[in-house]
Amino acid sequence: MRTVAQNAELALLLEVAGTPKPGNVDRHRDHDDLRFEHFLAGAVGARDGLDAAARGEPLGESFRRAIEGMSAQRGGNTQFGAILLQAPLVAAAGAEDRTLSPEGATAVVDATTVADAADFYRAFEAVDVAVDDPPEDMAALDVRRGSDAVPALKERGLTLAAVMERSADRDGVAREWVQGFDRTFAAAESILSADSERPVADRAADAFLELLAAEVDTFVVTQHDRATAERATERARAALDGDIDPEELAEEFAAEDINPGTTADTVAAALFVALERGLEV
Amino acid sequence: MRTVAQNAELALLLEVAGTPKPGNVDRHRDHDDLRFEHFLAGAVGARDGLDAAARGEPLGESFRRAIEGMSAQRGGNTQFGAILLQAPLVAAAGAEDRTLSPEGATAVVDATTVADAADFYRAFEAVDVAVDDPPEDMAALDVRRGSDAVPALKERGLTLAAVMERSADRDGVAREWVQGFDRTFAAAESILSADSERPVADRAADAFLELLAAEVDTFVVTQHDRATAERATERARAALDGDIDPEELAEEFAAEDINPGTTADTVAAALFVALERGLEV
Repeated sequence: MRTVAQNAELALLLEVAGTPKPGNVDRHRDHDDLRFEHFLAGAVGARDGLDAAARGEPLGESFRRAIEGMSAQRGGNTQFGAILLQAPLVAAAGAEDRTLSPEGATAVVDATTVADAADFYRAFEAVDVAVDDPPEDMAALDVRRGSDAVPALKERGLTLAAVMERSADRDGVAREWVQGFDRTFAAAESILSADSERPVADRAADAFLELLAAEVDTFVVTQHDRATAERATERARAALDGDIDPEELAEEFAAEDINPGTTADTVAAALFVALERGLEV
Repeated sequence: MRTVAQNAELALLLEVAGTPKPGNVDRHRDHDDLRFEHFLAGAVGARDGLDAAARGEPLGESFRRAIEGMSAQRGGNTQFGAILLQAPLVAAAGAEDRTLSPEGATAVVDATTVADAADFYRAFEAVDVAVDDPPEDMAALDVRRGSDAVPALKERGLTLAAVMERSADRDGVAREWVQGFDRTFAAAESILSADSERPVADRAADAFLELLAAEVDTFVVTQHDRATAERATERARAALDGDIDPEELAEEFAAEDINPGTTADTVAAALFVALERGLEV
């Protein structure tokens, strides 16, 4: 029997092991400076913070600890979004008075405080995360300001849930936070209902393609633009329909530097939910 | 900064990620029922027991806990030997009055008790480990008897170090325990002195080939016979000399079902030592 935090860490490892996951680091592919082994170290480093979240310690502080631990490798940002998506699910799974369900996780989100938001901002000091410029009225709250943004957060009395609401229209992880984690739980059910003889990492790769085919990856929007992200989703649908080999799609995305990272984050969170619901490795 | 147990877990993960590691599960190869993902789960499950060893809890009990945690996956034995080889090194690294050195680790070995030996035997109940029949006068101490062998252990007053001494002529892990972990520390230095730009998992694969080329793998002897193990070592030497592509050797060993598992165990322990000595991932 694994603990909640062990399942969260294992989910991060299974996610990166799934292949082909077109555009992302996976068991068969590295990027130039961001390699498979950086994800292994990132997952190992994240566990203690995830364990704090499972024990009911403040969510923002637990998240920040997980990100600081994740960052103890030379690849840079490996699993920031994945851990952010996992954190409220881990807290719900660990709490005695909550369940790992859309309602339980949303209750965790609703209970976040301004202090949680401050720690979320501090987490950005541990690692460079690719984000868009915020809208003009949010410039004081640019996450890249790290702890310098904390006074503005406090002044406006923004909880971590409120911060996520303000990003939900352009960030897929924030959208899951405010919309009951519906894509995450649906992907978990898809992984759970697959042939139990099929390796879990392969099921994770299937889920990746299904998620990307269904919805534009907001990280690709940030990294390139909406048109590129929409084309990536069309190509994923073609792969899902059997019109293109996913391995070929992986080559295509690598050549165009398309990295659907938010979709990978969702898979990591879905794997955690599936493991908690009895998925056997 | 990772803790001692985090480094031990990461070493297990980096070991299995190294490729090509002819004959073993690696980043590019699975066996039929023993897959890469089983090693991921095994490493995650092992950490808490390794952490107990680092904190100075009894070595046998810590080892047993690590093996029980490792076994929470469907692949069977993934890292029994690797964890057995890591355990005294982890204890030495964690102790305030010892250092991670041949002397420090040997002091841990010398301090083992009959209770440690009993827990070592109990660990075999968690997972099937391939071992040879013991010599006739050791039949009562066949490790496959698990806790049934504990009365015989107590009667003879055998510490875990004494158990290892009795296996050192036919088991490479036991030999490391009683010979100051010389191959492990040498391999750690080899990994540390490699080009720092070379991915750590690739350096682990290099170390695997060097170790196998230098010495017969005792697991291959157990699995097949000495002649097969000697031929495997010759072939590894040919790969090291550039006379055969290691990827081809991997195909060759897979076809002949040659799994140099003890060599992989040594690499996992060497990676732990290297991480503790400053190896950056």
